[in-house]
Amino acid sequence: MYRFKPELRIPGPAPVPPQVSMRVASPMINHRGREFKGMFPCVMERLKPLFGTENSIYMITGSGTSGMEAAVSNLVSPGTPVLCLVGGFFGQRWADLCRAYEGEVHILQCPWDGGIEPAQVGEYLDDHPEIEVIFVVHNESSTGVLNDIKAISAARGNHEALLVVDTVSSLGGARVEMDKWNLDVVISASQKCLMAPPGVAFLSASPRAREKMAQCQSSRYYFDIARYEKFMEKGETPFTPNISNVFALNEALTILEEEGIENTFARHLLMKEMVREGVKALGLELLVEDRFASPTVTAVKLENADAFRENIRVRYGVEFAGGQGPHAGKVFRIGHMGYATPLDMLTTLAVLEIALEKYGAAVTAAELVMNQKN
Amino acid sequence: MYRFKPELRIPGPAPVPPQVSMRVASPMINHRGREFKGMFPCVMERLKPLFGTENSIYMITGSGTSGMEAAVSNLVSPGTPVLCLVGGFFGQRWADLCRAYEGEVHILQCPWDGGIEPAQVGEYLDDHPEIEVIFVVHNESSTGVLNDIKAISAARGNHEALLVVDTVSSLGGARVEMDKWNLDVVISASQKCLMAPPGVAFLSASPRAREKMAQCQSSRYYFDIARYEKFMEKGETPFTPNISNVFALNEALTILEEEGIENTFARHLLMKEMVREGVKALGLELLVEDRFASPTVTAVKLENADAFRENIRVRYGVEFAGGQGPHAGKVFRIGHMGYATPLDMLTTLAVLEIALEKYGAAVTAAELVMNQKN
Repeated sequence: MYRFKPELRIPGPAPVPPQVSMRVASPMINHRGREFKGMFPCVMERLKPLFGTENSIYMITGSGTSGMEAAVSNLVSPGTPVLCLVGGFFGQRWADLCRAYEGEVHILQCPWDGGIEPAQVGEYLDDHPEIEVIFVVHNESSTGVLNDIKAISAARGNHEALLVVDTVSSLGGARVEMDKWNLDVVISASQKCLMAPPGVAFLSASPRAREKMAQCQSSRYYFDIARYEKFMEKGETPFTPNISNVFALNEALTILEEEGIENTFARHLLMKEMVREGVKALGLELLVEDRFASPTVTAVKLENADAFRENIRVRYGVEFAGGQGPHAGKVFRIGHMGYATPLDMLTTLAVLEIALEKYGAAVTAAELVMNQKN
Repeated sequence: MYRFKPELRIPGPAPVPPQVSMRVASPMINHRGREFKGMFPCVMERLKPLFGTENSIYMITGSGTSGMEAAVSNLVSPGTPVLCLVGGFFGQRWADLCRAYEGEVHILQCPWDGGIEPAQVGEYLDDHPEIEVIFVVHNESSTGVLNDIKAISAARGNHEALLVVDTVSSLGGARVEMDKWNLDVVISASQKCLMAPPGVAFLSASPRAREKMAQCQSSRYYFDIARYEKFMEKGETPFTPNISNVFALNEALTILEEEGIENTFARHLLMKEMVREGVKALGLELLVEDRFASPTVTAVKLENADAFRENIRVRYGVEFAGGQGPHAGKVFRIGHMGYATPLDMLTTLAVLEIALEKYGAAVTAAELVMNQKN
């Protein structure tokens, strides 16, 4: 029984560094007072390089889904024709949200073990010039797929559809270039690669998206982006924010800045390769082929995956996530996002070796990857 | 300059006890895992005595306003006739939210320095039998008024309108009896008398309210109470919750339970009386007469209130809130909610004495109140 130091290897919420946890415990302050107004706009400013944008970033106190709903409720009026690119659980959530707001929802379904083919998006838009907004997930954490958002954006060609991207499980762990890639709305959340606890979502919108939001007829108040923009001018939020999380982000961003954004991306790529090579060395099958593989989460096929996970959790304190949708019970997912290191991946692979009685195989393979990349 | 130990005397976010802050810093856990499922339903169960209900309590990750919007979006369809009882900023927010959802909004306005007269509510309902839902604020923190919810509920007589109550700034500091008073929806939040940081809202609904919610046509997803109920059966939330705040509430409820709910209410009433007698002894005018006075926040009339507040904040580190709406700049508000004691009120009054150069008056008056009540 080694559970006394648990290792959270799920695709979020991800572990929080102790120095960030300490800041979460900061004494409470007035959200309309000087200290908050000094800190909050700086934190939002420091998120901009991770979003790759010069646009304002708004913070909504809520889960990641609250950020998704903010995007939908500000852009989708009853009857608005939208295209949802669905290759997993969170792509499906975009479609569910758009239906909740009575959009005319088109679905481009791709296999739940692969990524979206940009060319298909271009073809769909050629056939459906009426589409006004496209919703896509950057990193589909339910399957471990990283979609090529740059190419999907480019596949729009001259079509005027806005592109809305969920980067909840990628932002801070994978490159996002909102401005260079011509993205219209990017949403994210605190509890994955940003290394803070769950509780706040972020939304950034292009000028073109802001124009469309101003026309939107859907009912909204808490998610009304115009309110967030107005209060942002004062360095505030319209509603009492999760102040503890702003303290957390302030510290977490310092850690990320010290590592350097390119090093952060490289660390995630290295963890991905170590895990994938290690899993292959164990004779297990990866759910997703290399070209779509996520840098933050890896799904592995296995019979009786849930019993396997539970055994590892109980015996070694390492917690994996299960499969979702069609993969329930047949896949386990290894999170390698945020506050996680290549050395953490060695112990992660070691417990797989022990559980499968295949000693040495995975760790050796992962060490070789580490050696090649250094 | 005595700012190095700041005293937050605003009507929320209220100070967080250090032992609660420590739990906010707890290491992150899986919101679908055993530890969370062991803790979360217990925390919701322990909130029930404060709500005075046997109904389930649902937790929404968001500001207090997210709880208000959850009530509106689940009950108000386009055209639903609703009555909003407005005597301050948060009563106004109910009306704004109901308009955002295209309800047919009736307003019963009462003076922004007084409470709602239950008899007027009864008369309004007699004249408008079509009203389906009434929205009211228990403790209007913008003015420092505690409304008599029991009497307002009773004033409905045989009228079938549902009663929805915002207890954000009263729950845990003043008596709320959802079941005995026949309330249909009660919403609250973590950051006031519950002594946790901001970031989660709560909603409880009567069986009659749940029936109406099932018929509601308004667009909702994140705020859809049916989703929260479904996940509550598993001891979970539908969307990644503010886990840190659940840890916080777990500890804060222990503190409240140790004090005992009746003692907690008595402490708040004592603080109210001390502050009111002290303020009177200074020759300042209270905004609200005794019968409507809030146990958690007191508004005081003063010329140049904002400069006065700022002076006290800078010189003594004690932070008051300003006036809202018609009272902006003409009132300051003293928060005495949650993690605050009668002794804290003595220093609060002392800085008023010093700032006004009326030494001894307020503290003496407050000490006499303390002495009488012990």
